[in-house]
Amino acid sequence: MSKENHIMKKIINNPESVVDEMLEGLLLAHSDKLKSIRTDNRSLVRNEEPVENKVGIVTGGGSGHLPLFLGYVGKGMLDGVAVGDVFQSPSSQQMLDVIRAVNTGAGVLALYGNYGGDVMNFDMASDLADMENIKVESVVATDDIASMPKGGEEKRRGVAGMFYMYKLASAKAELGASLEEVKRIAEKANDSVRTMGVALSPCTLPEVGRPTFTIQENEMEIGMGIHGEPGVKKGKIESADSIAETLVNSILEDIQIDSGSNVSVLINGLGATPLEELYIVYRKVHLMLEERGIHIHNRYIGEFATSLEMAGLSISILKLDEELQELIDEPFSTPFFTQN
Amino acid sequence: MSKENHIMKKIINNPESVVDEMLEGLLLAHSDKLKSIRTDNRSLVRNEEPVENKVGIVTGGGSGHLPLFLGYVGKGMLDGVAVGDVFQSPSSQQMLDVIRAVNTGAGVLALYGNYGGDVMNFDMASDLADMENIKVESVVATDDIASMPKGGEEKRRGVAGMFYMYKLASAKAELGASLEEVKRIAEKANDSVRTMGVALSPCTLPEVGRPTFTIQENEMEIGMGIHGEPGVKKGKIESADSIAETLVNSILEDIQIDSGSNVSVLINGLGATPLEELYIVYRKVHLMLEERGIHIHNRYIGEFATSLEMAGLSISILKLDEELQELIDEPFSTPFFTQN
Repeated sequence: MSKENHIMKKIINNPESVVDEMLEGLLLAHSDKLKSIRTDNRSLVRNEEPVENKVGIVTGGGSGHLPLFLGYVGKGMLDGVAVGDVFQSPSSQQMLDVIRAVNTGAGVLALYGNYGGDVMNFDMASDLADMENIKVESVVATDDIASMPKGGEEKRRGVAGMFYMYKLASAKAELGASLEEVKRIAEKANDSVRTMGVALSPCTLPEVGRPTFTIQENEMEIGMGIHGEPGVKKGKIESADSIAETLVNSILEDIQIDSGSNVSVLINGLGATPLEELYIVYRKVHLMLEERGIHIHNRYIGEFATSLEMAGLSISILKLDEELQELIDEPFSTPFFTQN
Repeated sequence: MSKENHIMKKIINNPESVVDEMLEGLLLAHSDKLKSIRTDNRSLVRNEEPVENKVGIVTGGGSGHLPLFLGYVGKGMLDGVAVGDVFQSPSSQQMLDVIRAVNTGAGVLALYGNYGGDVMNFDMASDLADMENIKVESVVATDDIASMPKGGEEKRRGVAGMFYMYKLASAKAELGASLEEVKRIAEKANDSVRTMGVALSPCTLPEVGRPTFTIQENEMEIGMGIHGEPGVKKGKIESADSIAETLVNSILEDIQIDSGSNVSVLINGLGATPLEELYIVYRKVHLMLEERGIHIHNRYIGEFATSLEMAGLSISILKLDEELQELIDEPFSTPFFTQN
């Protein structure tokens, strides 16, 4: 798809109102589960907030990644979210509002991806909350191994594997754990998960109207970020099995997972990739892990963190110990997902 | 996207093995819920089949539409499915196998879309089952109002609204109703639902390697079928609100829904359309129905019947009476969906 002849094909009204109208639709659809705490709807919390005696867990980030971020607010999951423009960080004021709304004195944990704007604004929001005597801790997701080589883990981006950090920390909080304990689980989750992805096509920001970057017709990019950040390698499109091998082998070189271990696997579609293809990739991942004696305790296959209509997918592998395995089996329910 | 410069961008191994490998992946992922009853995996049933004293409900159809068809096999939903090649009907033998596997003497109901091959093969499978003294009834989905004008309802295609026929008939069967009663609910569901869609881009069959049809860069097609069957109108891409108005008004001209009525709404993405856009469209649908005094009892927003990586969406509206409303609230659980 060349940059020159591309015209934006989107079902929207106008580029400036995409996020506002999406949020209006969401609140009309799910008023039984979510409520807005700002007149501009840019901060949302569970309907039953604040939940007494529970550590509040919040997140925030740009739009264009549904179900990330707001799709993870719900029972057994996050308490609230600050919603930015497409691929833009929400403001520190939006974050502060959501922190205030979920705090009941047990403290608040902020979980988000490692992106400059999000980190800066959450830092500021935490400082402001601190001045109001709300205790806020943060854990930043850094699961994308393609964004920085081993050794630079703390500089890596957060991508689809963030789902696991949300899920596990939220389950711990729901069981009544302290802020310190919930934070420990979030850190352990982030330390235990690795993600790598491949993109076959770019996406188009509504306000820009042109693809954010170009990928040749017969090419794919390995390791591309969910905002189109460059990957580790551009090359000819490979087979599903070959893509699975590259991604799984890269992950297993980055984190040691011994034979006999239990893992959870997430096959995440980036937006335009059919579920059929995700299952073809899952097949190879399953066979590869089985061959190494690694047992897949459970798996998530579908769209969990997208980039608008980008074609491609990512694979995340979470190493489980007994503690994480118990937490991952806990139920949760949001407007986008239900796990019994 | 012109036909000439398009190269297939798919994450597959080879076009001939797409369905087999997808099924292998599915069975590896969901062996706790689904089992294969043929060595070629082309007929699947719930793990606990046959379910004693329950009317069995089966479906079948071509691949390339996930979660349709096999995604609806599960507890509180369908009992079994026959799986065809991409956009191709399964064979009558596959259908017969699945009918046999779910029959416990209470009879079997076959529910499927109104497509030539599916109708012919299910007719043949029913005749063969009849010779084995298995009572089989069929209801054919005809919810796509764009495929034939009013008056020719029975010739219409079945599209995303089929979900409601599955859901309601399955809930009735789960409650222990007779074959006659379950069939009555399936017919009532099909009579009560209408669907219309819009496509912005074509899709590419793996074995063909080129788009099945062309849509100009600035055009959309209203009423296009899920295999690329021609719609009622090709035109310039319109706004989300304008698309919602066209689709909802067409539906409400086709089926009378009075002020004060309850409905269920399904906003279905065709494959490449971001969830954000589906919520923007839901917003307008909600406002339009509210203005007419029509109450949305519940809604489903996401991918329910796709066309590989086609961009576009469909809107289905189901008119509810007390009986259907009770049935739609019943829980169900498949590898793809959970409703509590």
